[in-house]
Amino acid sequence: MNLPEAGALLAAECARYTELGWMRGTSGNLSVRLSDDPLRLAVTASGLDKGELTASDVVEIDATGAPVSEGALAPSAEAGLHGRIAAVSGAGAVVHVHVLAPVLAAERWPGGVELRDLEMLKGFGRAAHDDLVTIPVVRNSQDMQALGDAFEAGWRADTPALIVARHGLYVWGSDLRQARHRTECLEWLTRFIIEA
Amino acid sequence: MNLPEAGALLAAECARYTELGWMRGTSGNLSVRLSDDPLRLAVTASGLDKGELTASDVVEIDATGAPVSEGALAPSAEAGLHGRIAAVSGAGAVVHVHVLAPVLAAERWPGGVELRDLEMLKGFGRAAHDDLVTIPVVRNSQDMQALGDAFEAGWRADTPALIVARHGLYVWGSDLRQARHRTECLEWLTRFIIEA
Amino acid sequence: MNLPEAGALLAAECARYTELGWMRGTSGNLSVRLSDDPLRLAVTASGLDKGELTASDVVEIDATGAPVSEGALAPSAEAGLHGRIAAVSGAGAVVHVHVLAPVLAAERWPGGVELRDLEMLKGFGRAAHDDLVTIPVVRNSQDMQALGDAFEAGWRADTPALIVARHGLYVWGSDLRQARHRTECLEWLTRFIIEA
Amino acid sequence: MNLPEAGALLAAECARYTELGWMRGTSGNLSVRLSDDPLRLAVTASGLDKGELTASDVVEIDATGAPVSEGALAPSAEAGLHGRIAAVSGAGAVVHVHVLAPVLAAERWPGGVELRDLEMLKGFGRAAHDDLVTIPVVRNSQDMQALGDAFEAGWRADTPALIVARHGLYVWGSDLRQARHRTECLEWLTRFIIEA
Repeated sequence: MNLPEAGALLAAECARYTELGWMRGTSGNLSVRLSDDPLRLAVTASGLDKGELTASDVVEIDATGAPVSEGALAPSAEAGLHGRIAAVSGAGAVVHVHVLAPVLAAERWPGGVELRDLEMLKGFGRAAHDDLVTIPVVRNSQDMQALGDAFEAGWRADTPALIVARHGLYVWGSDLRQARHRTECLEWLTRFIIEA
Repeated sequence: MNLPEAGALLAAECARYTELGWMRGTSGNLSVRLSDDPLRLAVTASGLDKGELTASDVVEIDATGAPVSEGALAPSAEAGLHGRIAAVSGAGAVVHVHVLAPVLAAERWPGGVELRDLEMLKGFGRAAHDDLVTIPVVRNSQDMQALGDAFEAGWRADTPALIVARHGLYVWGSDLRQARHRTECLEWLTRFIIEA
Repeated sequence: MNLPEAGALLAAECARYTELGWMRGTSGNLSVRLSDDPLRLAVTASGLDKGELTASDVVEIDATGAPVSEGALAPSAEAGLHGRIAAVSGAGAVVHVHVLAPVLAAERWPGGVELRDLEMLKGFGRAAHDDLVTIPVVRNSQDMQALGDAFEAGWRADTPALIVARHGLYVWGSDLRQARHRTECLEWLTRFIIEA
Repeated sequence: MNLPEAGALLAAECARYTELGWMRGTSGNLSVRLSDDPLRLAVTASGLDKGELTASDVVEIDATGAPVSEGALAPSAEAGLHGRIAAVSGAGAVVHVHVLAPVLAAERWPGGVELRDLEMLKGFGRAAHDDLVTIPVVRNSQDMQALGDAFEAGWRADTPALIVARHGLYVWGSDLRQARHRTECLEWLTRFIIEA
């Protein structure tokens, strides 16, 4: 995938999340893998309205989140965590949205949000029975190195999500569609355990 | 109705439920009766985004949920329960959606969700007064035979719905429209008893 | 206004309420005044999907809710209450929707839902300060005469709404737009007092 | 910006807020700065459906909220507070919406709604850590002078919002887009603290 193709996909996905109310203000950012070696991602540019992105509102970054070339647009401030997640997990796409239910769940269960025996876990890539899924919760930080270390310390290959407390949700997958499906399932799951 | 006609109807209905947020991820599946003798259903294919189905994203199944002919698409994993419900109830259409309120209600009332003296029961096909309606709740399972047996054990001809605990809702009717109207009414009813 | 004009307006209004989720299933019905002497209303036909009405899905009724001429479509079962409300209040339009918040409020305050010192009361036609507004609550019934008598017993010219317990909301105004604005304000107000 | 340009922007913004359900009935009003010296604002006209505004549904006002020239349309009754906020804060745009969460928060914390250590505060123009943000709450009034005095008494240059108790929210920024982003962030923040 080249950068303009990635930009078009990212803009379309952002419009979907915006419609769901999960990218309020200019919050959230999405990335998709462009190449493996060296690792390159396309990430949404910083500070823009996510309901109005165009295919050019995208920046190519390396595994540290640094832009590969100089341009008018800055990558999202959280690009470093996107790079880290992609490098560690091998994900093809990373979604970061400010969706409320997971953040509420993390506030109630700051040591990790436990999900078990729920059908929607299948959509998240796990089993619907007898499979305890713990979504890691890390403290919020503006230091992407610190956030990335906390992510990596709690990372498990079978749990493609991370909640940053009092902030938002990261979910990843092989591509943007799988990441979205997992994000939608995790929102349902955390809404369920909050209301149940 | 032939399979392409059924596929077009199922895609349109799925888009409606997706818009309501009741088919998050790739969850949920719908079926419609193609013939009575032998019983044949058209069911949505497995694993697809329900907001993006086309008329060809459909599989013809028999009463056991098995595909009638080999094809590229697999029927929904829950096709067996669709077949069982259609066979037992005589329904022309079966809706399975992961809508939150009925699942929350089943979590609170695992022995069955009781509804009574509520006008919306008319839209579900029952009386608005002095008519106790109990929506059966069954334990979740990946075994469609087990789910089907549990459904049949609790089945009553006047109660066209089933909640699978920690999973989702099944509703059926003479056609997709009636099934949708009943689904919408049951969502309202369960949201009411949860919030009341 | 003639019947086709009224039908077009009613269909457009119903589509709006459907979009808000306030006419789930085939619930709810709207009417608009066609003439004063004798009183004639156009009311939405019974049993239809309110998101899909056309301008011809309408029936002309008299003050008792009886159809003025024989036709293929039956008026809403609640047409008699529409007629009674229009006759007693002088309203030009009556809205009946199954919106959740007022019904939840009536469940909590079955003797009447009290609202006071809230800015949104201005949009309902009352004062924002020092003006106690009590929305009458009546028991649900399938007998429009009984419902109409209960409405009339509690009717006050300055309170253009009625909640039918465990059923839904009636709001009226000079025209469909004013009735809608009042309905929207009352939904906000009842949601506020439930959540506050 | 001239008045027709401002009217077009205001109509488009109002349609967005209406879609979010934050301008129910005819509630809410928006303004944008036309000139600095003398201060002139374009404000939405009073009493209209905010989902149906056109570019001409706008009135030019001075810093007191008085219309600059006579016309068919009256400015919003709250134009005086728009003028006061613009004059005191230097804002280029002021948003007033009847969004529920901030009003619920003000009901719970009538002395001011405190927000701290939440990422979404960055979208509101503050820091995500160790920065206590207190959204002032003032009593509702129909007297724009009294409301304006209460606003000014509590005003801080770093806190571009005001909650009017049992009424609604004011948020301002350099332009309508920034004001909207801040409004969206504050809605998220107050929904979070209510549900947490």
